Amino acid sequence: MKIAVAQINPTVGDIGGNKKKILSYMLEAEKQGAELVVFPEMALIGYPPMDLLLNKKLIRDNIDALNEIAGKSKDIAVVCGYVEYDNDNPPMLYNAAAFMHCGSIISKHYKTLLPTYDVFDESRYFSPAKKQEPVKLKDKLLGITICEDIWNDEYDSAGQLVIGRKYEVDPVAILAGRKIDLMINISASPYVKGKNELKWKMISKIAEKHSLPIIYVNQVGGNDSLIFDGNSFFVNGKGEFKAVAGGFKEDLVIIDITGSNKAINPVEDGIEDIRKALVLGIKDYFSKCGFKSAVLGLSGGIDSALTAALAVQALGEDKVTGITMPSVYSSKGSVDDSLRLARNLGIRIEELAIKDIFESYNNLFSDLFKGLQRDVTEENLQARIRSNILMAFSNKFGSLLLTTGNKSELAMGYCTLYGDMAGGLAVISDLPKTMVYELAGHINREREIIPPDTITKAPSAELRENQKDQDTLPPYEILDRILESYIEKQMSADEIIAQGFDARIVKEVLATVNRSEYKRRQAAPGLKVTSKAFGTGRRLPIAQRFVP
Amino acid sequence: MKIAVAQINPTVGDIGGNKKKILSYMLEAEKQGAELVVFPEMALIGYPPMDLLLNKKLIRDNIDALNEIAGKSKDIAVVCGYVEYDNDNPPMLYNAAAFMHCGSIISKHYKTLLPTYDVFDESRYFSPAKKQEPVKLKDKLLGITICEDIWNDEYDSAGQLVIGRKYEVDPVAILAGRKIDLMINISASPYVKGKNELKWKMISKIAEKHSLPIIYVNQVGGNDSLIFDGNSFFVNGKGEFKAVAGGFKEDLVIIDITGSNKAINPVEDGIEDIRKALVLGIKDYFSKCGFKSAVLGLSGGIDSALTAALAVQALGEDKVTGITMPSVYSSKGSVDDSLRLARNLGIRIEELAIKDIFESYNNLFSDLFKGLQRDVTEENLQARIRSNILMAFSNKFGSLLLTTGNKSELAMGYCTLYGDMAGGLAVISDLPKTMVYELAGHINREREIIPPDTITKAPSAELRENQKDQDTLPPYEILDRILESYIEKQMSADEIIAQGFDARIVKEVLATVNRSEYKRRQAAPGLKVTSKAFGTGRRLPIAQRFVP
Repeated sequence: MKIAVAQINPTVGDIGGNKKKILSYMLEAEKQGAELVVFPEMALIGYPPMDLLLNKKLIRDNIDALNEIAGKSKDIAVVCGYVEYDNDNPPMLYNAAAFMHCGSIISKHYKTLLPTYDVFDESRYFSPAKKQEPVKLKDKLLGITICEDIWNDEYDSAGQLVIGRKYEVDPVAILAGRKIDLMINISASPYVKGKNELKWKMISKIAEKHSLPIIYVNQVGGNDSLIFDGNSFFVNGKGEFKAVAGGFKEDLVIIDITGSNKAINPVEDGIEDIRKALVLGIKDYFSKCGFKSAVLGLSGGIDSALTAALAVQALGEDKVTGITMPSVYSSKGSVDDSLRLARNLGIRIEELAIKDIFESYNNLFSDLFKGLQRDVTEENLQARIRSNILMAFSNKFGSLLLTTGNKSELAMGYCTLYGDMAGGLAVISDLPKTMVYELAGHINREREIIPPDTITKAPSAELRENQKDQDTLPPYEILDRILESYIEKQMSADEIIAQGFDARIVKEVLATVNRSEYKRRQAAPGLKVTSKAFGTGRRLPIAQRFVP
Repeated sequence: MKIAVAQINPTVGDIGGNKKKILSYMLEAEKQGAELVVFPEMALIGYPPMDLLLNKKLIRDNIDALNEIAGKSKDIAVVCGYVEYDNDNPPMLYNAAAFMHCGSIISKHYKTLLPTYDVFDESRYFSPAKKQEPVKLKDKLLGITICEDIWNDEYDSAGQLVIGRKYEVDPVAILAGRKIDLMINISASPYVKGKNELKWKMISKIAEKHSLPIIYVNQVGGNDSLIFDGNSFFVNGKGEFKAVAGGFKEDLVIIDITGSNKAINPVEDGIEDIRKALVLGIKDYFSKCGFKSAVLGLSGGIDSALTAALAVQALGEDKVTGITMPSVYSSKGSVDDSLRLARNLGIRIEELAIKDIFESYNNLFSDLFKGLQRDVTEENLQARIRSNILMAFSNKFGSLLLTTGNKSELAMGYCTLYGDMAGGLAVISDLPKTMVYELAGHINREREIIPPDTITKAPSAELRENQKDQDTLPPYEILDRILESYIEKQMSADEIIAQGFDARIVKEVLATVNRSEYKRRQAAPGLKVTSKAFGTGRRLPIAQRFVP
């Protein structure tokens, strides 16, 4: 039996557009001889729709579209993710898959395990399935599960604990007990560094355990912070990978589930996958929001240089403008490095010095601030003058402002609210500074894109005389490990200190992270690539006094 | 039997401080002859702790504190809200109440119904209780439920549908079936306009239905966006109110559950309750974040005037500074009205004209913008110059900047990101413009606080010649009703048009609301007083194309 994996990139809420895409993939799959075509979880609505799901019209529209798709499933069977009413418990819904054939909906399958952690809020909208029933296609009995339904095995093949949460029901085991011939899992599973390795091991082990071939179909595409990586696959009943779809792009793969092609050994390409994820995240945020061009401030530092390089890869060199805005505290190197970066990238660059504007603010404050020392006020003011300039460019020319801060500085509040934090999309806000260096090196692997000086000089905000990041922050190699322990692993101060870090530094870092929450609450949405990013998946009160 | 209702104001995460407060209320309740003292839901941790609950140390600290409290429950029994481990399903927790007496924990009671809608995310952290058991105190059998557990009756006393969600389990009915003598419900139920009337009717009806006296103990205090109003109460088995604690303040009320004092008829005081809620919200946000003084821009308009008046009521006239920042487009009235407001309130006011700074930006842009029309760029720029001035004052003097936008303009994106949207707390961001007028009138009910001109003149952003809000927006009386239908009632365009509104206006308003989501994602936290505020309880994607 030939089955088509339709790894599509839907746009959230665009029922009409998504339906059209689904119909065209159906046609192509049929043309290529498939008897069944499988679309991802919530293919009709996009993921995550969030509170759009509270709009009754959205649900009606998606049911209407599903019926239209069913009507066209004449000669090919279709599995497609959508949203169904829970009529026993309104206004709750089901995260559902429809199995359609011969022009109608044959069966509906609901998601049993509803992720309600990190960026996921499925219990907010959905009821869990009360039963799991297989469905027949010709001589094959198929089990259909949705994403989290298959994430129930806690241990990877090395016997290591890999998932922190255990569910009481295992939909895969229930369906395997019904003697199905094939498990189909439709997913909307966002990219997280290291997650594919884990997923591949886990699902291969599940296939082997139940002697059950599994087709896994994932969404692809960027939706706000989340980047779906595709990488759909087929494993046979021995747990061997027999087909893998493309990563970070739409794909249609025809799988012969009884075929005997060679086993594949998929591997994550660490830093290259992160690059692809960020490029796709930028590309889709722009196209789905209707923006064509980007603007960003170039400071001569590594963060803005890396952001510019990624933006060019996503949008093209003619769609990115850099603005360098020297102050009296800027080194000559900063402007030179920015000009060199722009030349390397082939992008337009404008130079707009902020000295006169800074002076006009200082004149205005001359009475009010008389006799007071210069302090962080004047540092922030410069950052905010720069953001005003960038936003004026953005408003005048319709370019979306990219903000360039990294995860380490966002964690420590080492950034200016309404200043360098301003922008529509935070491209590298989930990259710790040490990862920024790694990715910059990777970008430069074939030829110089980011100027060498930008990479080698000591990081500085250049907002006062001879300022260096390391005057205020611990060395990034240490800081990033403490931050990872606290933010991604949720360890306490004592546990982190027990790893061998200086107690005073750990306590100061953790307190600073907590104290800076008010800044992050107003931060631009950022692209998520780690298991715990700032943003919708990390929700903290501002007025609080927990001692971590 | 005398029972003390301890309506306290905990600080989120401040286990030590909350424990101290609980111990001191225990002592006072004992002194006043109570045999049992009841504290609210999650009294030890505060509400909402959000992802602080993922810190294992927080949970350990709260268990340690609970054990200390139990040790001191020698001569008085205590019911107190805390968080317990779900050992069968780590890392999940229970939202719990401990019943303590004679120096130890007698029984633990878990929340069954976990609100996971609007601002609530309880399924993210908690497992539901699997059973509901009563507990004996002397000759009385007590049932203990937690907040949502009692919100299961869908209809109010008039037979009207009042809650959109029905649960399959009814913990109140289960416990009533066990022949309890008294139901205790501990809550952390935030203020929402109109919710008390509904709650009072609902719980009175439950008491009557089961012939069951009910003690309801609510938290009080502001925590970020949420304002807990207290208003704890006791209803007898006939559904009559026999005692009501204070609103919007801490309180300790001794209830004789067998006493025969006169029945009370509690009523919501619409606009006055909103005023009290906002004042408490400001006061607690400042004290819990460690701020003492506020600064805000005074435009001469009604939004900033109302915000200033509320800030003075919360913090005192010597803790609020207004800054008036006229431009070439400001009317003379704007400065005069601001000066008059400051005089009426007795606050400091500074005048800082933005003309020179605006010119220095325009000079900088003279080449870049040559030949281009002035447009929204220059309007936004003025708003951002003002926010830079306000943030400089905030940074230099340590005053928290209040932002003054209302719900109508936030809905329509009729505000400048990083401009008038800048600030640490959005005081009136959940008040539609029509409610702003109502509250301003209420503030002025005894004497002039807000100048009459500020109330009567046509609203204007004064960012270009002769600009008026109504050049861009529909009249507020119409706009606010459309917005309420869309945002609070989640109606579709067709349903709103069917109410009699102009189709073109409705479609334009709804599209504008959706298009402005990117601004709200970066908005300051705002105080919630309606059933659907912008912020943590309304979660929408930015890159989306749903046609409402």
